[in-house]
Amino acid sequence: MERITGKYFIETPFDVENAAQVLAGEQSSGTFIAVPGETEELKARFAARVESITHLETVNSPAIPGASSKHNLYHRANIEVSWSVENFGYNLPVLISTLQGNLYELTQFTGLKLMDIELPESYSNHFRGPRFGIEGCRQLTQVYKRPLIGTIIKPSIGMTPAQTAQLVQVLAEAGIDFIKDDELLSKSANSSFNDRVDAVMKVINNHADKTGKKVMYAFNISDEIDTMLRRYEYVINAGGTCAMLSLNSVGLAGVKKICDQRELAIHGHRNGWGMLNRHPLLGIEFPAYQKLWRLAGVDQIHVNGIQNKFWESDDSVVRSIEACLKPLANGTTALPVVSSGQWGGQAFETYRRTNTTDLLYMAGGGIMAHPDGPGGGVVALQQAWKGAVDGLSQDQAVQRYSEFANSVKKFGSKA
Amino acid sequence: MERITGKYFIETPFDVENAAQVLAGEQSSGTFIAVPGETEELKARFAARVESITHLETVNSPAIPGASSKHNLYHRANIEVSWSVENFGYNLPVLISTLQGNLYELTQFTGLKLMDIELPESYSNHFRGPRFGIEGCRQLTQVYKRPLIGTIIKPSIGMTPAQTAQLVQVLAEAGIDFIKDDELLSKSANSSFNDRVDAVMKVINNHADKTGKKVMYAFNISDEIDTMLRRYEYVINAGGTCAMLSLNSVGLAGVKKICDQRELAIHGHRNGWGMLNRHPLLGIEFPAYQKLWRLAGVDQIHVNGIQNKFWESDDSVVRSIEACLKPLANGTTALPVVSSGQWGGQAFETYRRTNTTDLLYMAGGGIMAHPDGPGGGVVALQQAWKGAVDGLSQDQAVQRYSEFANSVKKFGSKA
Repeated sequence: MERITGKYFIETPFDVENAAQVLAGEQSSGTFIAVPGETEELKARFAARVESITHLETVNSPAIPGASSKHNLYHRANIEVSWSVENFGYNLPVLISTLQGNLYELTQFTGLKLMDIELPESYSNHFRGPRFGIEGCRQLTQVYKRPLIGTIIKPSIGMTPAQTAQLVQVLAEAGIDFIKDDELLSKSANSSFNDRVDAVMKVINNHADKTGKKVMYAFNISDEIDTMLRRYEYVINAGGTCAMLSLNSVGLAGVKKICDQRELAIHGHRNGWGMLNRHPLLGIEFPAYQKLWRLAGVDQIHVNGIQNKFWESDDSVVRSIEACLKPLANGTTALPVVSSGQWGGQAFETYRRTNTTDLLYMAGGGIMAHPDGPGGGVVALQQAWKGAVDGLSQDQAVQRYSEFANSVKKFGSKA
Repeated sequence: MERITGKYFIETPFDVENAAQVLAGEQSSGTFIAVPGETEELKARFAARVESITHLETVNSPAIPGASSKHNLYHRANIEVSWSVENFGYNLPVLISTLQGNLYELTQFTGLKLMDIELPESYSNHFRGPRFGIEGCRQLTQVYKRPLIGTIIKPSIGMTPAQTAQLVQVLAEAGIDFIKDDELLSKSANSSFNDRVDAVMKVINNHADKTGKKVMYAFNISDEIDTMLRRYEYVINAGGTCAMLSLNSVGLAGVKKICDQRELAIHGHRNGWGMLNRHPLLGIEFPAYQKLWRLAGVDQIHVNGIQNKFWESDDSVVRSIEACLKPLANGTTALPVVSSGQWGGQAFETYRRTNTTDLLYMAGGGIMAHPDGPGGGVVALQQAWKGAVDGLSQDQAVQRYSEFANSVKKFGSKA
C-alpha cells in the first residue's frame, strides 16, 4: 500500500528515537486500548512508521522555550515518518491534520518543523493540479522566453475604481504583463469589487483590442465561499483571466473550491507565511507548503525574491523557486511569483542561481518611479532579464541597455 | 467610523515607535506614491493608526533569530494598531490578512505575536455567531448545571464502523454526554464515513429511544467543501446533532460555509495550534484566535486542559476558557472543550480558577480504564465536578464518592 512521508527537523531533550516514536504514535493509532476484534495486522496497517533518523548536532539551549532538560542537552535530528494512504485517502484537510496537527504540542519537542512531504504516484494522479500553471499563464499573457513582468496596485488601499483604472491604463501602456490587487483590498468603502472590475477590465479590454495584448489582472476575491464564487463569475464575465486568493486567510477547503472552477488562473498570495515559517525550528518549510496548495490547484504562488526587503534568505528563495518548478500533480508546475524590493538588478543573481525564466517577476517602485516613466521601467526589467539570460553581468547590461542603466543609477545603491 | 484594533506583543532591535509605524504602514496604505486626486483625507481614512505603545523590557538576544542589532539590544513592547472597518468591511479572510499578514515578515521585528483583537459593535452584530453555543449544546444533550462529559474514540484510526459502534454502545450505557471522532479520521480504508454514521447513530438513536438521552457525537466531516456539505446532510438525516471540523486544516472560508448551515453544532478542533502559538513571540494568542472562529460560527472550541499532557501552561488554559465565555457575536458564547490528560482530578483546580461549569470536559483513559468500568468512569467525572462545585477538596470528594476515589487511586499519581 502506498505511503505518504513527512520529513521533519526536530529538537528534543529526550532520546531522539523515543521522541520520533511518540510523534508517530500521537499522529496515528496512538496508545492502543484493547478493542474486540483488533489484530496486530490492523495496527500495522494504520500505524505511522518512523522510516529514518539522521542525528545532527546537540545544543545547550532549547530552540523553543517551555520544556527543559536536566542536563541542558537538546538533540537535533532529521526524521522521516510515513503513513499509509489508507488512513485518509485523498482528503487534504485530514492529511494536514496528520502531518501538522497535534505534534507541535508534544512536550517531547523543543523544536519541530515539517521540511517536505513525499507523495506517492496515486496522489499525484488523483489531483489535477493547477488548471493553467506556467504554460497556461504564458498562453493567457502571450509572454514567452522571459519572465512575466508584473506589479501591484499601490497604495494598497484607498484608491477608487477610477483611480485604479487610471493606473492600470498607465501600466498597460507601459507594456506590463500582470497587475494585482494588494492583499489588503478586496472590497473597501470607496472601491466596490464589481465597480473595480468594471473600471479595470474596460481599460484592459480596450488595450487588448488595440494592441492584441491582454494584461492579466489578479482581482483579490478572498472572502466567504459564496461571495468568492460570485466574484469569480463576475471576473469571467468582465473578460478577466485571473483571481487572487490569500491562501492562509481563506484556507485550504475554500481555495480548492475556487481552483476547482478551472476558468481563471489563481494567484496564490501567502501572506501570514512568516508566522508559519520564520522560526527555524517551528512550523513548515516552503517545499512542503507549496505542495499542498498545488494539489489544491493554485497556479501562481509567492516565493519572495532575491535580496528582498523581508527577513528571508536568498537560499530559501532559491529553494522555493526550485520547488515550484518540480512537476507534481499530473506533472504540473506552478508559476513562482518573485516579489519584494525587486527592481531588475536582482535578475542576474536570480537567473544565475535558478537558471529559469519561468517566473512572474514583480516590481513596484522599479516600474512606477523609473526615470523614463513606467514604460521605461517595464522595458528596463525586460532588459535586465535579457541580459541575465544572455550571460551578461549587470555592468555589461548597463553598457548595452539605456533604460536598465537608468534603473541602476536610481535603484542600484539599494541593492 | 468604527475601527478594529489589533494588540501585539513585539520585539525589535529598532526604535519601538518607528517599528510600530512600519507595521501600520505595511498593513494599510503602505508607502504612498502620488496618485491623481489622492488627498490627505483619503490617506487618513484608510491608513492604520498606532494607538498605543507600552514599553517593556530590553533583552540581549533576539527571540527569533535572523535579524541582528549592533548593540545586542532588543526592545519589547505591547502595541495597539487600529484599522477602519471601511478597509475590509465584514470580510474575515481580508481581516486576517490585515491583522496577521505580511507583518510577520518585517525585518523590523525579532518577535511579533497577535495577542487580542478588539471588534466594534457593528462587527459583533453583523456576524450571527454560533447557532448553538453553550445553551444550545446543553439543550441538545439535556445536560445542565455541570460540564458535559465527553470522550474521544481511541484508537484514533483503524477501527471499523462496527467496532466504533460497539464502543459507542459501551459509552452510551456508561452515561456519556458527548463522543467525538479523532481528528486523524474522517474516512479511512476500513471506516467509510457513511457506514460509520449509520452504525454509530443506530446505537445512539436506540439508546435515546430507550432512555430519552441522546448522546452528541461529533463526526469529523473535515474535507473539501462539497464533501463536507454532503457529510453534513448525511449526519442530519441519520439523526445526528454535531459535526467536527479541524479548523486550521479546513480554513476559515470552509468552516464558515459549514457553520452557516446552522443545523448541527460545530465542534472546532484546533489541531496545528502549537505551530501558531508555541513560541512566546511568534504567531497568535488564543483570545485573538477564538474570536475569528466564533465570528465564523463555531459552537465548541478546544482549549486544552489544566495539568495537560502537552506543553501549554495552566495560565494559558484559564485565559482560553475565560475568552470563550465572554459574549461576542450577538452576545453569543462558545463552549470550551477541555481535554488532554484529564481524568477528573483536575476538576477542582479548573473550577477554582474559572468558576464555571460551562465546559465540555473530555477524558479518555479516565473513563475507559476506570476500575469500575466506563460507567464508573463517567460517574467519577460527574462526582469530581459535583465535589468541585460544592467546594470540596479532592480529599473530601474521595471520602464522599467511591467511584471518584477509585479514579484517584488509579490515575492520581499522574497528576
